[in-house]
This record gives sequence, C-alpha cells and structure tokens, in this order.
Amino acid sequence: MASEDREETGRIEAFSDGVFAIAITLLVLTLQVPDVHGGLWHALLDEWPQFAGYLTSFAIIGIMWVNHHSMFRTIVRSDRVLLFLNLLLLLWTALLPFPTNLIARYLGDGGTDAAVAEAVYSANLTLAAIAFSLVWIHAVRGGRLIASPLSPKAERQAIVRFSVGTLVYAATIGISFLSPGAALAIQFVVAAYYVFEQVAPSSS
Amino acid sequence: MASEDREETGRIEAFSDGVFAIAITLLVLTLQVPDVHGGLWHALLDEWPQFAGYLTSFAIIGIMWVNHHSMFRTIVRSDRVLLFLNLLLLLWTALLPFPTNLIARYLGDGGTDAAVAEAVYSANLTLAAIAFSLVWIHAVRGGRLIASPLSPKAERQAIVRFSVGTLVYAATIGISFLSPGAALAIQFVVAAYYVFEQVAPSSS
Amino acid sequence: MASEDREETGRIEAFSDGVFAIAITLLVLTLQVPDVHGGLWHALLDEWPQFAGYLTSFAIIGIMWVNHHSMFRTIVRSDRVLLFLNLLLLLWTALLPFPTNLIARYLGDGGTDAAVAEAVYSANLTLAAIAFSLVWIHAVRGGRLIASPLSPKAERQAIVRFSVGTLVYAATIGISFLSPGAALAIQFVVAAYYVFEQVAPSSS
Amino acid sequence: MASEDREETGRIEAFSDGVFAIAITLLVLTLQVPDVHGGLWHALLDEWPQFAGYLTSFAIIGIMWVNHHSMFRTIVRSDRVLLFLNLLLLLWTALLPFPTNLIARYLGDGGTDAAVAEAVYSANLTLAAIAFSLVWIHAVRGGRLIASPLSPKAERQAIVRFSVGTLVYAATIGISFLSPGAALAIQFVVAAYYVFEQVAPSSS
Repeated sequence: MASEDREETGRIEAFSDGVFAIAITLLVLTLQVPDVHGGLWHALLDEWPQFAGYLTSFAIIGIMWVNHHSMFRTIVRSDRVLLFLNLLLLLWTALLPFPTNLIARYLGDGGTDAAVAEAVYSANLTLAAIAFSLVWIHAVRGGRLIASPLSPKAERQAIVRFSVGTLVYAATIGISFLSPGAALAIQFVVAAYYVFEQVAPSSS
Repeated sequence: MASEDREETGRIEAFSDGVFAIAITLLVLTLQVPDVHGGLWHALLDEWPQFAGYLTSFAIIGIMWVNHHSMFRTIVRSDRVLLFLNLLLLLWTALLPFPTNLIARYLGDGGTDAAVAEAVYSANLTLAAIAFSLVWIHAVRGGRLIASPLSPKAERQAIVRFSVGTLVYAATIGISFLSPGAALAIQFVVAAYYVFEQVAPSSS
Repeated sequence: MASEDREETGRIEAFSDGVFAIAITLLVLTLQVPDVHGGLWHALLDEWPQFAGYLTSFAIIGIMWVNHHSMFRTIVRSDRVLLFLNLLLLLWTALLPFPTNLIARYLGDGGTDAAVAEAVYSANLTLAAIAFSLVWIHAVRGGRLIASPLSPKAERQAIVRFSVGTLVYAATIGISFLSPGAALAIQFVVAAYYVFEQVAPSSS
Repeated sequence: MASEDREETGRIEAFSDGVFAIAITLLVLTLQVPDVHGGLWHALLDEWPQFAGYLTSFAIIGIMWVNHHSMFRTIVRSDRVLLFLNLLLLLWTALLPFPTNLIARYLGDGGTDAAVAEAVYSANLTLAAIAFSLVWIHAVRGGRLIASPLSPKAERQAIVRFSVGTLVYAATIGISFLSPGAALAIQFVVAAYYVFEQVAPSSS
C-alpha cells in the first residue's frame, strides 16, 4: 500500500515536472522578432517589455518547480483531492505564457492597456500561489498525506510563508494600476529572492 | 519475460505521459492576444470562447492522464495491438489543440460555423473515448495483458462506464447543432466530474 | 563499467523519447484554422492535405519511436560515434514538422510546388532512415555495443529490412514528381504497416 | 543524506534534460514556410540562413546536453547556488530559439541588421558558456559537490577547456560585425567538433 502510494506521488511529480519544463521552455515563443529594415538593435531595445516578461516568468516557473519538489519530499501519499488541486496548480502554471504575451504586447503602450495586461498577469500569479497553498494545506491537515505530522510551529511557519507569497502577488494586482512596470519589477525580485530562500518548510 | 513485459508497459506509460504533458501545456498556444488600442479588458472578455475551450481541453487531457495511469496499473503486459491502439489514443489526444483552436475562433460567431467547430471538437473527444475503450477491451479480453482476470461483474462495470463516457461525447456531436455552448458546457462538467470519480475499475 | 554503460544508453533513450514525444505532439501546430465566414465545414475538407500530412507524420514518428526502443533493447553500450549518429537521427525526426508544413501548404496547389514539397518531405524521411541504419550498423559491427553478437543470418536480415525501408523512402522522392499524393499515400501505408511489423531484429 | 543528495542531482538532471529536449525540438518552429506560387524550390534555397541557424543551434544544444550529463556524472551533491546557476544555464539554453529566429530573418539581409542578429546570437552562446563554467567552478571548488576532489592538473585542464569555449564564443560577437556568416560557420564547426571531443574532464 505504502509503495503504491509512493508510486502515486512519483507519477504526480513526473507529470508536473514535465509541465513545468515545457511551460518554462515555451516562454521563448512569446518573444517576437521585430520586422524592420535597418535599426534592428534599437528595435530590440524598444521591445524591452517582452524580455522583462520572459525573465520574470522564467524565474517564477523555475522557483515553482523548486518549491514543488521541496513540497513533494514532505508529501508521501496521494488522494483524489490532491490530484485535483495539483492539476489546478498546473493549470495556472501552463497558462502563464498567455499573460506573459499580454505584457510583451501591451506593457510598452502605457495607459490602461498596460495596467490591465499586468493586472491579468498578477492575477494569474495569485491564483497559482493560492493553488500552491491549497495543495499544501490539504496535504498537511491531519497529517494524512505526509510521513510524520509537522510540529504546530513548523505548520504555522509554512502557512505564514505561503500567505506572504500569496498576499504579495495579490497586492501587485492593485499596484498594476498605479505602475505596471513597478508591479512586474516586484514580481521579478520576489521570484529571484525565493530561488535562494525556498518557501516549503521541509527545506529549512 | 515478466520483467521485460513490465518494462514494456513502463515505456508506453512514459511516452504517453510525455504526450499528455506536452499536449496539455501546448493548449496555451491556442490563446490569442487581442490586438487593440484601448479597451484591452473588454477585448479579453469578448474572447471568452477561447478561455472556455482552454479550460475544457485542460480538464479533459488532465482526466485522460489520470485514467490512463489507472488503466496501466491493471495492464501489466504489452503486445503489438496494444501499442497500436495506444498510439491511436495519443493521436486523438495530441490533436485536441486543433479543434480547441476552432472553438476559440468560431464559437463566438454563432451560426453554422460555431456548430461545426463544436461538432468537430465533440467528434475528436468521441474518437479519443473509443480509442480508450479499445485499449481497455483489448487488454482485459481473456485476461492476457492483466495480472489477474477481472471478475465478470468488474468487467461489466468497466464496460458500462466506458460506454457511458463514449455515448455522452457522441451525444454532444448532435447537441452542437442545437447549442454549441451547451455542448461545450456538458463536456466541461463531465471532465470535472471524472477528476473526482475515475472511470478505470482498478481505482474503485 | 557495464552499469555505467547501461546508464549511458538509458540517458540516450530518455532524451530520444523526449524528442520523439515532443515532435509527435508539435505536429498539431502544422494544422491551420481556416479563416472563413460561413462554410467552415467545406473549408476544413478543402484542407485535406494538412490532415493527410499530420496523420502520416504522426504514424512515422510513432513507428520510429517503437523501432528506436526495439533497437536499444539490443544495444547495451554506448560510445561517442553512437551518440553522434543518434543526434543525427533526432535531427531528422525533430525537423519533420517543417516538411509536414510544406505539404499542408502546397500539396493542394498541385503542379511543381506540390511535387517539391512532397519531395522535400520524402528526402527528410530518407535521411532519417539512413541515420537509423547508421546507428544500427555502427552498434552491431564487431558486436562491440550489443550484449551478444548477432548470428550472420540475423545481421543479414536486419540489414535487408533497413535497406528496404530506406529504398522505399528514397523511391518516393522520385514518385513525388509523378504524383505527390501517391507518394504520401505510400509513406502512410508503409508506416501503418510497420506499426504491426517492426523492423528491428530483436523483436522478431 | 548521501542518497537524498543523489536524488537532488537526479532531479536537476531530469528537469534539465526536459528543457534541452524541448528547446532542441522547438527549434523547428523557427523554420518559416515560404509563401509563393511557383518556384518553391528556389524560395527554399533563398532561405538558407534559417536552415544554417537551425543546424547550428541543434548541434549546440545537442552538445550542451552531452556535456551537461558528463558534468553531472562528476557532480554528486547539490546546493542552492548550484540550483540557481543551473537555472541560469537553462535560461540561456531555452532562449536560444529567439536569436536563431533573428538569424533566420536577418542573416540574408546583410548589412548592420545581419551583424546585430548574429552578434545577439553569439552573446547568447557566450552567456550560456559562462553559466556552464560557473556551474562547474562552483561544484568543484573545495570539492564540496563532487565525489572525490579533482587533481590540481585535472582542475586546471577543465578550466582551460571551459575558458577556450567561452573565449571562442565571445570572439564571435566581434566577428559578427566583420562577417556574420563566418561567425555562424565558426560556431557550427566548434559545436560539431565538441560532439566528438567533450569538454568535461570526467569523460577524458
């Protein structure tokens, strides 16, 4: 039974890794080649929003992959709800190239369109962070899907960390309407920070 | 011999998982960025058919992945016909982004084009369901490719479940001509339902 | 040493499987959604060349995957030349969506363009078949990379089979200029036939 | 502890292999089907830059995959910095289809645009080579992440080899402004050479 459960989380991890690897590599398709005759260098510089969006999404999917693995070192059993919540997480991950495209196309325009593009991007990140939290909360609650129950302190710490991430991304939805560029910069910094300091408690 | 057979189904599973993961992630390429100056938010809302199609196809490929694994926990041996039938199943799975594109482009138009787009989508799902049934029927018939023969009751239950899924999808081909949106909604609800209640008998 | 070699072919197989799975799934991107107002069904039927190309390439990559695995059940060691020849095989496999696109765009036009499109497609298949043969010939020659030397009869049979496949594909380059559609039909039939009757001797 | 570390590098390798396999296969999307009526063959020949770019990028990602594996046969432990540096390497690998697209579009134009396109491509390769060196230097320094410390001679040899690769790619940035085509040819020859003669010392 235990080994079958183990195999079950192995399946989820392998499938999720596949989706993470494909989504992070597909991001390159959001980069458009400028169509100019002369002045290619300046045309590329003018397209900085698409490179900023590419870098940010790459860092975010990269850190999500790292954290997903950390999380599944603690989670050793699976059930239907976990499967469903993990699919929800993959949905928001696989969708990310779309709002990255919105940023690439509209961030340089400024105005309301830039704000809407960045707000949709921020909403996508927030939904991914919520799905991440739901996977974790479902897995540790009652200790059913983990090897040994977390101490109350570790459980509290983990919930604080997940909440902080979710709140920061939710805040960038609002910040998008003040300054889309600032919202994107905050998202990049948060992702880059988390590459060094993972959120899942098992790795602390 | 047994271990070579085991390895054989391991190969099929790994390759199939790859195709499922790639197809589910490629779906994002069906989402078009609207080309507007001002009014991006409304332009996105107007494109609801592409998001509805994305969500439905994501749920359907997700549940196909889950069921494929359930099925291959019961199937422990492989032969040429199984390999061929599984490739047929992967063909219809890998093709799904195309009719999803048709929906994204034509469902909002209404009229005959919307009906044809949704009918082609429904036909694709029906063909996938038939291929799924054929893999299963070939594997359990005579118990040649499974570890231990199913009880007649379990075999009957499995066939009933597969038939119901196939008939529902086939019915949506007709429903497409009455109401394309209703047909898509039914397909989404069926897929979401099956995430909780898998079709393969080994998981009951 | 033996286990390190074993791991070496495991790496090649996993990487090759990834390329096969991605190439076979990317084929769907060769399918264009027609841009019409009314008459979608006829527009889809008019685009039969893209569906014929899709099906044929899917069958061909599918059978290449099957044969690649059969071959690597016999090959148990690796060296630099094998690595290089296998990359050459993957090059022609990963390239296949491009001539499939040529067929989708030009086969319906008829005339010289249709012939050139189908001839380029045939040349791609021929080069893939040659790379396949080179991998096999390098591996079995002197028995260095296989577990036990093949009998002279088995070696002769394998070479005959590979040569037949290569010659058939090479012949379709010429047939393309007589009838592009007939050349494509031959390629589809050959691929469908080989799904049942694999070329690698280890599976006979 | 050791086995958990081992698993850790297994994760990195599997994820990296996924990105390499996807990036090498996505390259085919850089190939545009010419839009002509008559004269398809000449139109294809006119597009030689896109085929030259495709071949070069395919060879480069192929050799990077080979070297990455060689490197991770020596590296047996992982830490946060390694994870981060490896993500940096994957960033430049996954980005490569974009400058390959630039070459496909602008190399045939000649003039400054061709030089800029090839210089951006060369810069991407240089950054990938630097990331490769950083992964290696971090892993061997102090022998913390490898099974047994390298001899000073082996360490020196490895650094020489990495530096040569990095310097050659950096030099092609400058050469791009003299002759974009020559720069690309050098890059292809270097990659083809390294398929036979890997850079990582563990394989010497």
